[in-house]
Amino acid sequence: MIRFNNDYNHGAFASILKELGATNSTSYAGYGEDEWCDKAETIIKKLVDNDDALIKFIPGATQANYVVIAAALSSVQSVIAADTGHINCHEAASIENTGHKILELPNTDGKITAQQIAACAKAYYDQDEPEYLTEPKMVYLSFPTEKGTLYSKKEIKEIHDVCTKYGMYLFVDGARMGYGLGSEKNDLTLKDFAELTDVFYIGGTKCGALFGEALIITAQDLKYRFKAYMKQNGAVLAKGWLMGLQFATMLESGEYFEAAKRADVLAMQIKKAFEDKGVPFAVESFTNQQFVILTEQQKQELAQKYYFEDEGDTQRFCTSWATTEDEVDMLVTDIEKL
Amino acid sequence: MIRFNNDYNHGAFASILKELGATNSTSYAGYGEDEWCDKAETIIKKLVDNDDALIKFIPGATQANYVVIAAALSSVQSVIAADTGHINCHEAASIENTGHKILELPNTDGKITAQQIAACAKAYYDQDEPEYLTEPKMVYLSFPTEKGTLYSKKEIKEIHDVCTKYGMYLFVDGARMGYGLGSEKNDLTLKDFAELTDVFYIGGTKCGALFGEALIITAQDLKYRFKAYMKQNGAVLAKGWLMGLQFATMLESGEYFEAAKRADVLAMQIKKAFEDKGVPFAVESFTNQQFVILTEQQKQELAQKYYFEDEGDTQRFCTSWATTEDEVDMLVTDIEKL
Amino acid sequence: MIRFNNDYNHGAFASILKELGATNSTSYAGYGEDEWCDKAETIIKKLVDNDDALIKFIPGATQANYVVIAAALSSVQSVIAADTGHINCHEAASIENTGHKILELPNTDGKITAQQIAACAKAYYDQDEPEYLTEPKMVYLSFPTEKGTLYSKKEIKEIHDVCTKYGMYLFVDGARMGYGLGSEKNDLTLKDFAELTDVFYIGGTKCGALFGEALIITAQDLKYRFKAYMKQNGAVLAKGWLMGLQFATMLESGEYFEAAKRADVLAMQIKKAFEDKGVPFAVESFTNQQFVILTEQQKQELAQKYYFEDEGDTQRFCTSWATTEDEVDMLVTDIEKL
Amino acid sequence: MIRFNNDYNHGAFASILKELGATNSTSYAGYGEDEWCDKAETIIKKLVDNDDALIKFIPGATQANYVVIAAALSSVQSVIAADTGHINCHEAASIENTGHKILELPNTDGKITAQQIAACAKAYYDQDEPEYLTEPKMVYLSFPTEKGTLYSKKEIKEIHDVCTKYGMYLFVDGARMGYGLGSEKNDLTLKDFAELTDVFYIGGTKCGALFGEALIITAQDLKYRFKAYMKQNGAVLAKGWLMGLQFATMLESGEYFEAAKRADVLAMQIKKAFEDKGVPFAVESFTNQQFVILTEQQKQELAQKYYFEDEGDTQRFCTSWATTEDEVDMLVTDIEKL
Repeated sequence: MIRFNNDYNHGAFASILKELGATNSTSYAGYGEDEWCDKAETIIKKLVDNDDALIKFIPGATQANYVVIAAALSSVQSVIAADTGHINCHEAASIENTGHKILELPNTDGKITAQQIAACAKAYYDQDEPEYLTEPKMVYLSFPTEKGTLYSKKEIKEIHDVCTKYGMYLFVDGARMGYGLGSEKNDLTLKDFAELTDVFYIGGTKCGALFGEALIITAQDLKYRFKAYMKQNGAVLAKGWLMGLQFATMLESGEYFEAAKRADVLAMQIKKAFEDKGVPFAVESFTNQQFVILTEQQKQELAQKYYFEDEGDTQRFCTSWATTEDEVDMLVTDIEKL
Repeated sequence: MIRFNNDYNHGAFASILKELGATNSTSYAGYGEDEWCDKAETIIKKLVDNDDALIKFIPGATQANYVVIAAALSSVQSVIAADTGHINCHEAASIENTGHKILELPNTDGKITAQQIAACAKAYYDQDEPEYLTEPKMVYLSFPTEKGTLYSKKEIKEIHDVCTKYGMYLFVDGARMGYGLGSEKNDLTLKDFAELTDVFYIGGTKCGALFGEALIITAQDLKYRFKAYMKQNGAVLAKGWLMGLQFATMLESGEYFEAAKRADVLAMQIKKAFEDKGVPFAVESFTNQQFVILTEQQKQELAQKYYFEDEGDTQRFCTSWATTEDEVDMLVTDIEKL
Repeated sequence: MIRFNNDYNHGAFASILKELGATNSTSYAGYGEDEWCDKAETIIKKLVDNDDALIKFIPGATQANYVVIAAALSSVQSVIAADTGHINCHEAASIENTGHKILELPNTDGKITAQQIAACAKAYYDQDEPEYLTEPKMVYLSFPTEKGTLYSKKEIKEIHDVCTKYGMYLFVDGARMGYGLGSEKNDLTLKDFAELTDVFYIGGTKCGALFGEALIITAQDLKYRFKAYMKQNGAVLAKGWLMGLQFATMLESGEYFEAAKRADVLAMQIKKAFEDKGVPFAVESFTNQQFVILTEQQKQELAQKYYFEDEGDTQRFCTSWATTEDEVDMLVTDIEKL
Repeated sequence: MIRFNNDYNHGAFASILKELGATNSTSYAGYGEDEWCDKAETIIKKLVDNDDALIKFIPGATQANYVVIAAALSSVQSVIAADTGHINCHEAASIENTGHKILELPNTDGKITAQQIAACAKAYYDQDEPEYLTEPKMVYLSFPTEKGTLYSKKEIKEIHDVCTKYGMYLFVDGARMGYGLGSEKNDLTLKDFAELTDVFYIGGTKCGALFGEALIITAQDLKYRFKAYMKQNGAVLAKGWLMGLQFATMLESGEYFEAAKRADVLAMQIKKAFEDKGVPFAVESFTNQQFVILTEQQKQELAQKYYFEDEGDTQRFCTSWATTEDEVDMLVTDIEKL
């Protein structure tokens, strides 16, 4: 069986394992205060062209999301997100568990617009004493979205402007950042994200690392005591260098970007195969996640050789940094036979 | 410089890295629903001689502690702990952050007694309507303690009996379980812990794994929806098999136990060296952590070649699964020269 | 200016003030452990025909709502409510502040159906390991709803059956209970609520008391340590007898029910006046709240003599236990002149 | 039986009930946006000589305490308090329930010193990266303390200076403010409290009101969205004018201050009687609470005619604004007969 069900079903780049082996008899300082984290920090600051950014490594994306949001918001503040946002659907109400309401906006293909966000903010900020409501203080976006779609630079700029107008933070969940940057339709860079958001992350877990997300915090007031929020939520790994090593290795060589781009290209081959076969799509995606609508028979046939995610009405096929051309060729051939 | 500052300054057993390499091109199901976690679960159930236990792997010890406590307690319930307990001093109030008061009891060499616990419980449970107080519903112990000391089987039994009497859960933080089990003074087994506690864990991070703690939950009502508590707190690793693989590898071979035992033996050599030198101890420990009281001059001399943890009045010297005989020989020689 | 803007703009029944005066030199035990609370409890137990119910008095409705929900739910459990539910719109995210997600269902005239609730519950309970979701464990309804509408006995029974099927609590917010019971369209009794719900309350603040809500808890496990949850959230009034006295006075005489019924009758006169004038309604209500859609000119004319709540698209006119026939006659005349 | 058990066992000043009667047919705006609250606000601003203070009325003292603390602290910040502080012993862990650790300092006669506070703050702020600890950001004091003792102006100034040095808020719980101000040993004024603290309150519940505490917030950043924190915690009373009316009435006439002072004078008579009898005191208090150590026989004799609070080792006798000279004469006579 070949797994197209998600992008976190393989270990890590061979280069990472090699480096782990090479350093296994070296001892390091704990809690991220080591040379590897320093090195990864330097590389990332250069990539985002921001020397003042606070760079922190967090083991998982759910943690990254709720720790950032909990650190940013007071208990009478809330976060605006698409109803399909990962924090709203897949994280067991971790945001509410920290005491914050998510103000859901209806998505279009996984995205929300500056207009929607502005309307939501305005409804609050234009009132005199809206004490029976919470203050929308942050906007959460995913790039790419949970539907595989992308925000354009223009869209992010517009959202950034709304956030600036109302004094709201902009937070971009980049769990699949590599696949977003690598898409043929993308026009955003890491530097853009550092300029247009207050905090975002470069996802490792789904893009070739064993685990780990690299947070880039540019907003000055979000940096204060941030590590204490991490510690309080168990997000400070004892052997922090394990994450520094991984990010330094895959970002310095560029393997992070190349492997994700290749996964996008492979996804486009799968996309074309489904299109040629006349299989309808739930949403048009130019990244590694493809959402199709199979017939019951098509599902059964493909399920004999492949794992994919069956969400009832829709089926997701996912490539990853580890997906091979052979695997995709085989799938394409089997789609053609449907 | 040689690190005796803590027991989490090296990577992992070579056997673990080897297995990671061997399986790196294999794909696995996510979130701990894989063959490695199944295997590790089977091994642990056998070690604790309890087929009904719920076994879960959690990336870090702070997470393990607060997720267990948050899952166990309602918001009007509290946890009894030594004032020196890790949850009370080193975890940035993670317990209070989940809404629970820690009822601190004064420690003796890092330990609390059944009598103290009984008095605390009685003060609450003997009242008619103690609605202005929280209900002590759990007892948290560390084995070994943060001072390197051990509870005896008799002591754990007595505490277990108090817990049973008042309907309180007994939770043992086993972040350093290996070093406890390996001590020449220990009379407890993993099976004993499974019988005498409601939940405890076998620490990986400090005992030879890259990261990870193996939770053993025996109390029936603590099992309910436990994975949702983990997910809500970001403690479900996407690539869960990484922890299953580590625990399966080091527990099956017995390397986990042997390496910790060796570290204890090496710590006893350091202990003897300090004793012979007439250096006073803050507490007598028979595990891998040794707490001594150095003079300013002694500190400076040892600090030239070794990292150790200077806590002001006390200095901690720690061996670990990765400490070598050569390193200890060198330290012993240098202690002799003081 | 005459206030039709809400139903909490006057003090209390004269009988209550009289009793306060008569007892002002009497001393009482604190925290609700007094003769007045005992008396009110006895009266309420008789009204709901349930001797085992736990009766508690809480100063305000927001408190009553979030204390009940916080006491009922673990942190991985959530509450189902209409998107228009008071807890979802008017209470500054007090539920999320206690750590719980509200699963909003789209309302029809302020109501949700057993079918909607069943679908929501089924989506969770039919899954094997829905650990990325929270467990819907309670259903919150308002009677009357925030739109002035009523659930019928049949509808409540159906919802009760869904709750029973999935092991969910049914909680009815009765902040305006009097106006619901007094409506010409109502077919439910307090006894029905005690039988068909797990917890509900008889609202005092909006129905003739200075303040206070009388909680009736019938579910056995919700009774445990309930007063501690109240205390922890500042909902145990030091001079608890003030609430016992109010409920005993207005419930024993029946004034609570009569005054609310009269307010409903007066609201029907306003309803008829708007209907006769051809003013459209946002929703058809048979209780003390009437939601109409006025033209800008109509708004301005009525605003010269009356306070009413302008919610943008809709205008709310509210009668209360304190509204007089003269006030309503005047308003009706002015509506006729529009 | 005569109650000396606490200071909240009677209704309210007759003047308050009279005003409630006089205004019962008047309608008011809700949620504290009314003429009575305006009036009380004006009176209080004059009393504290601070026009910019934010004045808010909160139904109860537990609410006042935890709402202020939750509004002031981020989740990685904590509050310093005496171990005997009301928030630490009598409020069911309401502070921890909002996510904050209380850093307890050992009390001397209910008080803590500037030196103790400075040491606690220094231990945190002098460290480089104390991310495993929470930031002490507020100091909580009670005036008078739970033991009836008073801070002097000099002591409050010293504590204020420590708070200023470390950027910590100073919060004074004034649930019994009247009895503090009225004591023969007091040298502090309301104006002093407004100058030397960031937030404090004038207690109503224990000093002659039916219920209610008047918060005075002088720190600019604590004012932001404060009413939303109140609403979120159910501390915005629908009929807010009830509190405005009470504070306006009793503060304008000065009855608040006179009655508390008289209670202190009566307490001094009880104090003298116990002293003359040779009954030992647990603590020397010059306010309305007296803590004595009775023999079992003395307890039994006095318990025949009086309620007092038996705390095991100590017995508390409390006068209040409602205590009469006759009641005290009778008690004094009975003490003499012991």
